[in-house]
Amino acid sequence: MSSASTGPPIEGTAGLSVNDNESVPLGSVYNPTMPPTSPTRGPGMYREDGKPLSKNALKKLAKDREKAEKAAKRAALEEQQRRDREATSVDNAKANYGKLPMIRSTERTAVRRVLLNTLTPESHGGTTIVFRSRVQNARVQSAKLAFLVLRQQTTTIQTVVAANAEGTVSRQMVKWAGSINSESIVIVHGLVQTTPEPIKSASISDLEIHIQKIFVIAEAEPQLPIQLEDASRPEPLASESNAPLVSDSVDDEATREVQLDASGRPVVTLNSKLNNRVIDLRTLTNQAIFSISSGVCTLFREYLLQHSFIEVHTPKLIAAASEGGSNVFEVKYFDRKAYLAQSPQLYKQMLIAGDFERVFEIGPVFRAENSNTHRHMTEFTGLDLEMAFEEHYHEALDVLEGLFVYIFNGLKERFGKEIEVIRKQYPVDEFKIPKDGKVLRLTFAEGVKMLKEDGVELSEYDDLRHVISKLGCTNIVTKYSLYSTIDERHLGRLVRAKYDTDFYILDQFPLAVRPFYTMPSPLDPKLSNSYDFFMRGEEILSGAQRVHDSKFLEERMRGMDPPIDPNSEGLKDYVDAFRYGAPPHAGGGIGLERVVFLWLGLGNIRKASAFPRDPQRVRP
Amino acid sequence: MSSASTGPPIEGTAGLSVNDNESVPLGSVYNPTMPPTSPTRGPGMYREDGKPLSKNALKKLAKDREKAEKAAKRAALEEQQRRDREATSVDNAKANYGKLPMIRSTERTAVRRVLLNTLTPESHGGTTIVFRSRVQNARVQSAKLAFLVLRQQTTTIQTVVAANAEGTVSRQMVKWAGSINSESIVIVHGLVQTTPEPIKSASISDLEIHIQKIFVIAEAEPQLPIQLEDASRPEPLASESNAPLVSDSVDDEATREVQLDASGRPVVTLNSKLNNRVIDLRTLTNQAIFSISSGVCTLFREYLLQHSFIEVHTPKLIAAASEGGSNVFEVKYFDRKAYLAQSPQLYKQMLIAGDFERVFEIGPVFRAENSNTHRHMTEFTGLDLEMAFEEHYHEALDVLEGLFVYIFNGLKERFGKEIEVIRKQYPVDEFKIPKDGKVLRLTFAEGVKMLKEDGVELSEYDDLRHVISKLGCTNIVTKYSLYSTIDERHLGRLVRAKYDTDFYILDQFPLAVRPFYTMPSPLDPKLSNSYDFFMRGEEILSGAQRVHDSKFLEERMRGMDPPIDPNSEGLKDYVDAFRYGAPPHAGGGIGLERVVFLWLGLGNIRKASAFPRDPQRVRP
Repeated sequence: MSSASTGPPIEGTAGLSVNDNESVPLGSVYNPTMPPTSPTRGPGMYREDGKPLSKNALKKLAKDREKAEKAAKRAALEEQQRRDREATSVDNAKANYGKLPMIRSTERTAVRRVLLNTLTPESHGGTTIVFRSRVQNARVQSAKLAFLVLRQQTTTIQTVVAANAEGTVSRQMVKWAGSINSESIVIVHGLVQTTPEPIKSASISDLEIHIQKIFVIAEAEPQLPIQLEDASRPEPLASESNAPLVSDSVDDEATREVQLDASGRPVVTLNSKLNNRVIDLRTLTNQAIFSISSGVCTLFREYLLQHSFIEVHTPKLIAAASEGGSNVFEVKYFDRKAYLAQSPQLYKQMLIAGDFERVFEIGPVFRAENSNTHRHMTEFTGLDLEMAFEEHYHEALDVLEGLFVYIFNGLKERFGKEIEVIRKQYPVDEFKIPKDGKVLRLTFAEGVKMLKEDGVELSEYDDLRHVISKLGCTNIVTKYSLYSTIDERHLGRLVRAKYDTDFYILDQFPLAVRPFYTMPSPLDPKLSNSYDFFMRGEEILSGAQRVHDSKFLEERMRGMDPPIDPNSEGLKDYVDAFRYGAPPHAGGGIGLERVVFLWLGLGNIRKASAFPRDPQRVRP
Repeated sequence: MSSASTGPPIEGTAGLSVNDNESVPLGSVYNPTMPPTSPTRGPGMYREDGKPLSKNALKKLAKDREKAEKAAKRAALEEQQRRDREATSVDNAKANYGKLPMIRSTERTAVRRVLLNTLTPESHGGTTIVFRSRVQNARVQSAKLAFLVLRQQTTTIQTVVAANAEGTVSRQMVKWAGSINSESIVIVHGLVQTTPEPIKSASISDLEIHIQKIFVIAEAEPQLPIQLEDASRPEPLASESNAPLVSDSVDDEATREVQLDASGRPVVTLNSKLNNRVIDLRTLTNQAIFSISSGVCTLFREYLLQHSFIEVHTPKLIAAASEGGSNVFEVKYFDRKAYLAQSPQLYKQMLIAGDFERVFEIGPVFRAENSNTHRHMTEFTGLDLEMAFEEHYHEALDVLEGLFVYIFNGLKERFGKEIEVIRKQYPVDEFKIPKDGKVLRLTFAEGVKMLKEDGVELSEYDDLRHVISKLGCTNIVTKYSLYSTIDERHLGRLVRAKYDTDFYILDQFPLAVRPFYTMPSPLDPKLSNSYDFFMRGEEILSGAQRVHDSKFLEERMRGMDPPIDPNSEGLKDYVDAFRYGAPPHAGGGIGLERVVFLWLGLGNIRKASAFPRDPQRVRP
């Protein structure tokens, strides 16, 4: 009953008056066993003119009183009988409601269970259906009437439990059903009926269900740690013309946990949602977000399989911190040490040297970075691909562009309903891509020029991630990650204003900020054949042509500052892979959660991860 | 040239005689600068009857000799000129061959590159094509003629480099092309021609290519650590009527590395292949194996997406060794410890409690087991799924059955060519499933009965994995893994003999050998609603109905030996997930590499992993 007071208003229901005649509140019931008080000086002893009544009149009065007393007694008796029926076993609806024992697979009747999202007035109006659902909220309207909103994932429907004359739905059943704990799971048998007016409080507006039977099969505890309604409340515009999205720090649980909003309703912080993630995931919004996340993976694979890629799985346990430095998780591996792969980079390249031509992988990527920002996690899902090319790494860029256009269009085509659901909680501008499908490609130099013209001070070879050089950091992964995003977002806004797109590519990055395996540019020794992809001004893909010649690779490694040893345990296998012929190749790594949170404008990457991991969080 | 001597025999080629007139071996060339020896007593000085020649005759002879000498001088001069042309710069074919500089994406001509597997006599006979490929082997047949077998993944084709009169293909070019290091990558321009007789040494038997231009773009070092031909040699029948497949220990590199086979050819051990995996992966067999591995994932997803599942990603970094015991890898996580998930089990169940109804995941699974067998790895790819059901966990079993039948049929339909390639190296009986698609389900008790009737001593509730109880092991994961497979295989053979299937299910396992989250059976308190799936007598899936009630879950945990604390850090979140209502659910976890190696009869799981990990191996 905890949510009854916060439930949505009940709207008009077919064939039932909300203003039920017997709207006596529970707990203040008229007691029929108390005898009527005998009048000592009542209005009935005198005539209207004040004179005493005649004998006959008095006789008639006594007779009337006797009659009334008899009637009252009879009524009291009947009421007593009714109460007795209710209080003891005489409930004709008893078989139609209650809590069932835990389902242990004792029987298989194969009674067809219906999905609510398949209901239409045409197909189901007037029919009786059976279904399993959650109780979103329940409330007793009167002794004869209760309303429950029931939920299946992103579908909600209004249902009615109304006591009837035949007793197949009794008052006890109404009372019991109306007090089912929110989030409990029930099996319902009910009659589908069209509604006289649209129901706004449920996702199905033209149908409601008149419950005939209802059984709890999994009872939720009465006190939920967070209310779905509170967790579903719309949040401020996540992105307004690409302004900084949210603070670059995680929520501070201590200071925010107890906040109330302007209307005095509890604000459920992101931390609180994540601490109670299993309940939080049930919100319509989260159901929709993770459908879309699944959809991105499906579209990613569809496109790549159509383009002759094969799916591979590279090891996450590796012998050495091969991609460099301290940002790698160390693992106790029997009597030695191993490490968690920071990306499939080296192994997907080895597969190219192993003749697989075009490979992709979807798998976890581990980064031991102490980055507490809105877009970093210590574990995320990498969508990686690598391909041999013939002449120019732009062949890979073409594939990547086609891939993203396919994903963006596919999401809009297949997940219209989910997008609509999410927009209610996270209103955001539509994600813009050029209508002709031609993706904007700028060179890094052009990007710098745009920023300079807008007054940003940058030298020609500055990385947008120029904070790195200030940190004097040479670690690859850190180079990739620990940088200010201010200039990136600034450029994103300029690009949107000029080219009307939320998606674009920067090509030919400075060599100095790319890893040793990146191919230097033939155009300028300070540049490289590398690129980043941006969504709403934030990086979601890094990629490049790689060095495919072992001797040049060794040269590049030795020339790094500090030099990298090509014969070290973690890198020897990698360098050796290129000694026996490898085709020129290029590829990229995409962060799944980044694509999802930026495309949907969620403001924080954690909202696109079922159980996010960051330096502060390994639970739940 | 290292592989020239081991190359396949060269077969008939269109328009070119293999018995070239000038088949002088290189290095023992006729020297035209040496003057012809002057005869002192030649047959020409006497008539056939022995009398001296007449003056006229002598005169004629002298003239003839003069003539011959002149002709010889002229020939010598011409030969000298030819040699000079060759030796110096006069090579008209110079632009048509050679080693190109490293491709750094300097130009994009967009000349169409052809895939060899698209060639047919009808579409390409008589046309000139351009393509990139590896040199499988090259050999000089004569000064005018060289043969190269070129390879693109699983496609090989014979090519010819023949010196011509016009000089566009010169002898120098023939010599150079015939000595390209095996495994180098080349760009070829050539004329496609039909062959007069089928070529058996290449996968394309009806076409060959007459090379016009050939350029090395990535040169392999001359000495390969293993030869592809040696690594591709057929291995003994992996499975004969399901006899034990291979020794349950890894190859012993020390004793096996230098073995020769009966014909004196080097045997490349599995260890040696894995140590040189990038080269080993290029064999036709491995190209095909990993296409099929990709195919299993594709079919897995297709089926589940069609059946309303969504794809999810659960964390691999977890707060505690939640599934129990010592078989979990410990990770240094900033200033605390974390662990690698042994399966997505707990998280996929939490997603069910979070209303996702039907979820699947493809991702790495980590097992810190010191198991050195043919079918264990410390990291493998888990194909996991979990679903809410209505009445009976057999609803999940139905889905799983349908899934496997879909995968098996899909592999046969889509990968016929790959299967054929693999069978050449690993001959094995066709994998049998019932023709009507109805999968055999036996109860565990029925399996025990079959074994008993065949003379195996077992008690009714013995696990097939009865070694465990002898070890007194209570760890969940160990229970799942560290058991003898002898009885499983034995049962596999009995089932195949009786039911003619390599795929079957055992249902209703003893409760004692299943984890705490398994639902006990309503039929017998010693049994559980759990099942294993078997392929060729070996387990490839474990699954069950799970406990979906938090109170019963706590009871089960406390009742384990030793008891498990429901309030421990790693399990509290999990148990809490069921406090607020969870539907009954069931699922299973499939080992991708097990499915691939058993379906193909490869004999060792490592052959189905690109870069396998076991207690001894974290490299390459």
